[in-house]
Amino acid sequence: MSSGTNAAGAGRPRGYAGAMTDYRPPVADLAFVLEHIAGYRDVAALPEFEHADLETVVGILEDAGDFMAGVVAPTNRIGDAEGSQRQPDGSVRTPAPFKDAYRKYVEAGWGAVPFPDEFGGGNFPWSVGLAIQEMLTSSNMAFALCPLLTQGAIDALLAYGSDDQKQRYLPKMISGEWTGTMNLTEPQAGSDVGALTTRAVKRDDGSYAISGQKIFITYGEHDLSEQIVHLVLARTPDAPAGTRGISCFIVPKLLVNEDGSLGERNAVNCLSIEHKLGIHGSPTCVLEYDEATGYLIGEENIGMRIMFVMMNSARLSVGMQGLAVAERAYQESLGYARERIQGKAIGATSDSPIVDHPDVRRMLMTQKAYIAALRGMMYLNAAQMDVAQFHPDEATRARASEVVGLLTPICKSFGTDLGSELTSLALQIYGGMGFIEETGAAQHYRDVRITAIYEGTNGIQAADLVGRKLGVRGGASFLEFIAQMRELDGELAAAGEGFDGIRSSLGTQLDALESATKWMLKNGAADPNAALAGSSPYQRMWGLVVGGWLLAKAALAEAGIAEPGDRLVLARFYAGQLLPQASGLLAAATAGAEDLFALDADALAS
Amino acid sequence: MSSGTNAAGAGRPRGYAGAMTDYRPPVADLAFVLEHIAGYRDVAALPEFEHADLETVVGILEDAGDFMAGVVAPTNRIGDAEGSQRQPDGSVRTPAPFKDAYRKYVEAGWGAVPFPDEFGGGNFPWSVGLAIQEMLTSSNMAFALCPLLTQGAIDALLAYGSDDQKQRYLPKMISGEWTGTMNLTEPQAGSDVGALTTRAVKRDDGSYAISGQKIFITYGEHDLSEQIVHLVLARTPDAPAGTRGISCFIVPKLLVNEDGSLGERNAVNCLSIEHKLGIHGSPTCVLEYDEATGYLIGEENIGMRIMFVMMNSARLSVGMQGLAVAERAYQESLGYARERIQGKAIGATSDSPIVDHPDVRRMLMTQKAYIAALRGMMYLNAAQMDVAQFHPDEATRARASEVVGLLTPICKSFGTDLGSELTSLALQIYGGMGFIEETGAAQHYRDVRITAIYEGTNGIQAADLVGRKLGVRGGASFLEFIAQMRELDGELAAAGEGFDGIRSSLGTQLDALESATKWMLKNGAADPNAALAGSSPYQRMWGLVVGGWLLAKAALAEAGIAEPGDRLVLARFYAGQLLPQASGLLAAATAGAEDLFALDADALAS
Repeated sequence: MSSGTNAAGAGRPRGYAGAMTDYRPPVADLAFVLEHIAGYRDVAALPEFEHADLETVVGILEDAGDFMAGVVAPTNRIGDAEGSQRQPDGSVRTPAPFKDAYRKYVEAGWGAVPFPDEFGGGNFPWSVGLAIQEMLTSSNMAFALCPLLTQGAIDALLAYGSDDQKQRYLPKMISGEWTGTMNLTEPQAGSDVGALTTRAVKRDDGSYAISGQKIFITYGEHDLSEQIVHLVLARTPDAPAGTRGISCFIVPKLLVNEDGSLGERNAVNCLSIEHKLGIHGSPTCVLEYDEATGYLIGEENIGMRIMFVMMNSARLSVGMQGLAVAERAYQESLGYARERIQGKAIGATSDSPIVDHPDVRRMLMTQKAYIAALRGMMYLNAAQMDVAQFHPDEATRARASEVVGLLTPICKSFGTDLGSELTSLALQIYGGMGFIEETGAAQHYRDVRITAIYEGTNGIQAADLVGRKLGVRGGASFLEFIAQMRELDGELAAAGEGFDGIRSSLGTQLDALESATKWMLKNGAADPNAALAGSSPYQRMWGLVVGGWLLAKAALAEAGIAEPGDRLVLARFYAGQLLPQASGLLAAATAGAEDLFALDADALAS
Repeated sequence: MSSGTNAAGAGRPRGYAGAMTDYRPPVADLAFVLEHIAGYRDVAALPEFEHADLETVVGILEDAGDFMAGVVAPTNRIGDAEGSQRQPDGSVRTPAPFKDAYRKYVEAGWGAVPFPDEFGGGNFPWSVGLAIQEMLTSSNMAFALCPLLTQGAIDALLAYGSDDQKQRYLPKMISGEWTGTMNLTEPQAGSDVGALTTRAVKRDDGSYAISGQKIFITYGEHDLSEQIVHLVLARTPDAPAGTRGISCFIVPKLLVNEDGSLGERNAVNCLSIEHKLGIHGSPTCVLEYDEATGYLIGEENIGMRIMFVMMNSARLSVGMQGLAVAERAYQESLGYARERIQGKAIGATSDSPIVDHPDVRRMLMTQKAYIAALRGMMYLNAAQMDVAQFHPDEATRARASEVVGLLTPICKSFGTDLGSELTSLALQIYGGMGFIEETGAAQHYRDVRITAIYEGTNGIQAADLVGRKLGVRGGASFLEFIAQMRELDGELAAAGEGFDGIRSSLGTQLDALESATKWMLKNGAADPNAALAGSSPYQRMWGLVVGGWLLAKAALAEAGIAEPGDRLVLARFYAGQLLPQASGLLAAATAGAEDLFALDADALAS
């Protein structure tokens, strides 16, 4: 962190320098969560993952953490200050230290860990890949977006690419030598993907000529790799309207010769990059395709299916961005709170570090408890993805798939909303210094704000929750999950009076969630607007309750292996002081749409 | 608004250009709130304000609104993009259009409206001055800070300046020809003002030599006026430690000759300005005083008293900044939501503007309802300040003073927390475009974030609420206010079934607030940490409930003068869907400090 923004270096609060903590990877917590919350041992027991036992994984995470903290984390502030810059020739220069960090990232092979060994991957479960991604993102979210987008493109090719396409692209994308992008958005087609107009005209050689303009393309152009593999949604001339007429194409920046070497430049150009609130290091491009050569993935008109493959893991990864940035901001704000001396705490005889003031404590505990709750649900979600993909039993796979369907919008929305709220608390702890960019707190607050928007806005997640997901098996999927959460009640009752408050609060809030769920089931089918009207508060209730359930599980697990300790405190604080907000949202979740539409648009403006 | 940040001007969503609404001053709403919520007719009936009847005032507000929208609002985006820049000679250049706008502001005399006519002011009530300030701040918060700081300095001089000082400084400050600053913070003295070390040594001629470094000085140096009147807190050599040993000095940038003309440069210099998250147009200075000539205000060691005069109206003004920026962001997001076409709303036969989607409606209604609630409490607070200062009856003045003491921390904290939350909702409505700086939504989100920090962080406000204010008359002041809010119940019952839901929700939430208040009264004295631990959620409960009460009052007032309409909808939406969050905070407000301190600082870090 540089103090260069303050020209004279003058006027820094006492304790400021000491508060510039490095990122400390939370490997011990990750190991605990994987084992006790996500059920990782069941994942490692799957035939695919014999080599991926928990002890091996923890060793890998320790190495990954060292790498991220040592190589990537130091690039975060300078990446923000420099930003990516488009050059007059249309190339894009990323911040100075990114290139070297990326080269080391590729050499170390971190991006390959969760992918199949037949293409050079490590064949580890996605739950392990996500843990590496968390630490990468905490270290530098703007940098981490490049591997994240590549991962989405890899997933799509793995699922729908031809053998030849897989052989041609996957080894270099999995190694990280080539990067990937997802080209969905156009000016008139954001949340409404079906409105896109980019054209794809088939040529005699079987390739397609792709023409159109795409916006918001993350790492659409950059200097970290020689090659960029664009996955582009477009329409063939005779395609049906809307989402049923979308096809997905590979459009490499450089054409790939038969021998796999790189050939001519394809007709895709970066017209401009955006000036954004945050993630300045990540170039967000407007790309123009002018009869660029593209190769169809799968068949025509299945582009939306392919997009959902890309989005599936990406939505969880974006929820994880909220957690990851909040974790870094929390660590730094705690460091500051321990060093900054200001005023006397009650009962103190001399001036106190602000960590001793109750309201600062509240801000720290709130961050820590929510982060723990989020980490539980993110890795549970990821492990269920592994089970859904690899478990030998079909019914087990099917149920895991339902759970992933339920948890993904919750992880995405709750993780990213909390990302903004918790980085705001972190910033607040710095007082006036939090508003000064050199502190770094403001960067976290700016960077994380996009996560509630991209990969499906949180409103779109809520619509997905009450639209697609709630109706699975007539609501039984949701009700079974609630019943499963209720099963903890017996364990909590047996665990002694230290758990009474948690048990009581969790029971009350599960009642509220069940009541909202039943209201949605009763009213949603006949009046979809009523369900959509309450979808965001309902989604938040889910996040709050799942978080409380998992913290309680963690406290019980810790009590089973050691003296009840820190996790019991977190679970009690969360159950007693944060979780009750869920019932405060019940009325909004179940109010219906009437009052939302009682004022017409002119009245809204008056 | 310029599209220059996107180099090629490419890739803007359809409807984007049409959504760039100008600021529309909410004069009709201000008039309603002044009359029906703030009780402005009682203020206008005070002997001081015979000339300030409501009709006259509304005319003034219309003119002020035209001025702000026409002259100041267009400077907002460019002010952010350019920022204030310190020059190598230590001068500071504000953004290009500021100088002309400020000259016009001074010529029009808007800053003089609420100050005494004996110094050239308009002698209007503060509640009217605040309405002008709201519109100025909505137009450009960074610009508005210069008059805001000047106002604080004027208040201090009016209260404690000598006749000579008043004659010498006030006319030019009230006209705006000279601006003012407040110099409190030093690197080691932020929230703990008593830790400041700037020295003031008396000279033979009665003036003082002021030496030390101040940070975070808003408009500490700039080019909008020739003269800057710094009000500086400092210590004399023999002063007691802590807050009881602080004195307040006038330190003019240029010494003032006997005839009132400007003389030599004083020894105060701008060492640097900060690189901040927002309000880039407003220079935040590190000032160095090197035996600068200062003039004592009042007597030695009463600096804290003077500071509280400056802070008193400033805290309300900062709460108002939260509202004002949220209002501008709301207007713009509504404009976008009406223009942006995306997807089909339920039942629509063609693509819909996003204002027709329920979750977007929720974001708009949430903004509108909170803004209305905030506006009610801000002007009630301001009108009570007028009553507290000017009412002929001492008991009435005393009670008004108590109400101001209660409402000020609530207005400051609730207004500024909501400022961040509502500008975030506004940004979210833009989807991906919200994250792009050219849209302007991100600027509001960045600008408003400081308001929760300066003029006493919101945690300091909460400590003031449960520390100083709750104890007034052994808690009777708070309980009487709650009883007063309960008196609306009869009117709501009589108003017909359209008000039933409001009545029921308000009653329930008043119960929760009263219960929290009684818990605070019971536990706070013996265990101050317990009260401080719950102070922030308790403060938020107050904001939520006062807001609900005032929206209900507004709905009743509207029903009395017209068909029940928009205000009933807002009150019903707020009571039904937002207000219930208050009881969701009760547990946190009354949990005590135990769980906050159950983890030591090392455990927080693990």
